[in-house]
Amino acid sequence: TFTPLNPDWEARTRAGFAKQGMMQTMGLSIVRIAPGEVDEEMAMTPAFAEGSGGLHGGAVTAGLDTVCASAAHTLVAAGDGVLTAEVKTRFLRYAAGQRFRCEGRVIKAGSRLTFTEGRCWAISGGQERLAATMAATMMVIPGRGDGA
Amino acid sequence: TFTPLNPDWEARTRAGFAKQGMMQTMGLSIVRIAPGEVDEEMAMTPAFAEGSGGLHGGAVTAGLDTVCASAAHTLVAAGDGVLTAEVKTRFLRYAAGQRFRCEGRVIKAGSRLTFTEGRCWAISGGQERLAATMAATMMVIPGRGDGA
Amino acid sequence: TFTPLNPDWEARTRAGFAKQGMMQTMGLSIVRIAPGEVDEEMAMTPAFAEGSGGLHGGAVTAGLDTVCASAAHTLVAAGDGVLTAEVKTRFLRYAAGQRFRCEGRVIKAGSRLTFTEGRCWAISGGQERLAATMAATMMVIPGRGDGA
Amino acid sequence: TFTPLNPDWEARTRAGFAKQGMMQTMGLSIVRIAPGEVDEEMAMTPAFAEGSGGLHGGAVTAGLDTVCASAAHTLVAAGDGVLTAEVKTRFLRYAAGQRFRCEGRVIKAGSRLTFTEGRCWAISGGQERLAATMAATMMVIPGRGDGA
Repeated sequence: TFTPLNPDWEARTRAGFAKQGMMQTMGLSIVRIAPGEVDEEMAMTPAFAEGSGGLHGGAVTAGLDTVCASAAHTLVAAGDGVLTAEVKTRFLRYAAGQRFRCEGRVIKAGSRLTFTEGRCWAISGGQERLAATMAATMMVIPGRGDGA
Repeated sequence: TFTPLNPDWEARTRAGFAKQGMMQTMGLSIVRIAPGEVDEEMAMTPAFAEGSGGLHGGAVTAGLDTVCASAAHTLVAAGDGVLTAEVKTRFLRYAAGQRFRCEGRVIKAGSRLTFTEGRCWAISGGQERLAATMAATMMVIPGRGDGA
Repeated sequence: TFTPLNPDWEARTRAGFAKQGMMQTMGLSIVRIAPGEVDEEMAMTPAFAEGSGGLHGGAVTAGLDTVCASAAHTLVAAGDGVLTAEVKTRFLRYAAGQRFRCEGRVIKAGSRLTFTEGRCWAISGGQERLAATMAATMMVIPGRGDGA
Repeated sequence: TFTPLNPDWEARTRAGFAKQGMMQTMGLSIVRIAPGEVDEEMAMTPAFAEGSGGLHGGAVTAGLDTVCASAAHTLVAAGDGVLTAEVKTRFLRYAAGQRFRCEGRVIKAGSRLTFTEGRCWAISGGQERLAATMAATMMVIPGRGDGA
């Protein structure tokens, strides 16, 4: 469990998420937020499909990157922001589903780097299957509180 | 230099690319194709921006993943396809530009796994800056020639 | 929970581990083994230190790679083996400790690729701190049952 | 091409390398050093083998991690050091050889993070084959000039 440094952590994280044009284009929305933890969901759409009709790996990565960045954002000091330094996504299964839920979790929050992990679940007819996992490293950016 | 196994490699790779809805949504197009090498470009658009107006890391990864998969696709046997097993993207600089070019290169083609590398260049006023690099591993899928 | 394909899974996994010269050189030993799960421990030694006296990142990676490969090995069919395709290690903290425990867990076992995760704990005066995490992808090698 | 910030860059990098016990244990030595570029070689030894007699992936990673850290070290300011934040190694081929050469290259040097890439070549009977590649991210540590 983490204790946020910024009393306004939730509003700041939601504002950082809302500013990202790509999230609106993809139809992602935050469904759960807690210190160090953010979940987001989106509906499947052909506009973000790969060649066989599943969700494109780039879209999976975009969703996972964003929940991980948002999870890190909940723990930075007031006025600070985060930027993604690097991500690794592994595609465990073909991403077929009606909806997708991305879960981002901080595993270590630091003053310079924050380490996060993410999981993407494909939801189909009430069943959930783990489609992809992420390990993402975030840079803490002093004085850039509007970043996500 | 690589020698394609499939005489129809270029048409098959282009067809695999064309089937991906996300690439059309993002406005990516192939600007160069050779055995083991594919380049693609897109114009910047707010629909794929992150919070400060640059290209979202998820969009960068989608472009890089796709050029790497296409580069791998040029080298598979007739009737075979590729699926991304895992990608790692590193964000060297803030991705600000008018256009972006993603370059995918095969570094080792195998019967089961093909190893690729990618680079994403941000193009602004005639200047090009390396924005991100990718290391991506592709699975070769026998008999799934319609994949990308 | 996983069900091993090979009734002789434990002996085969232990034999694969025992064949690795580097594990003996480092003094690593298996302290727990179950289907899809292997833990190993080693004592700190200056022979594997980095510049400031902590355990070298290469040694951390060697330990994590091996527990992940062993965890994957517990789930392959009789006669098959595993080879590491790729690993990513993240160093959360300086690896200072009297002992280190590496934990490997399968998150998806496949016929061609098995996906694993690892954690390395630094143990000091009865306290355990998470020093590093791994995401490792293993290739299943048919008929190479002596691999690790 | 890079211009070192520290006029004493070569001696400092060599000193940082020499302090790492694991490098002596493995018998690695620097064979080439330039700003942003370091190569190291070692002879094959059963003490660092995996189950089939090749060089263990952990040893490959240790060598690659160290050349990448050393390459980053050549470019930091006087008094600063580097620590590995994360590495990804991909094993392209079974690492069989009489000798191994690891090459580390900086692709972007920053004030907080330096991005590097590495290649490990297996040398056998005068022939060199690419055995593994690394993408490694280094943290620049102010005032910790004795690090590697």
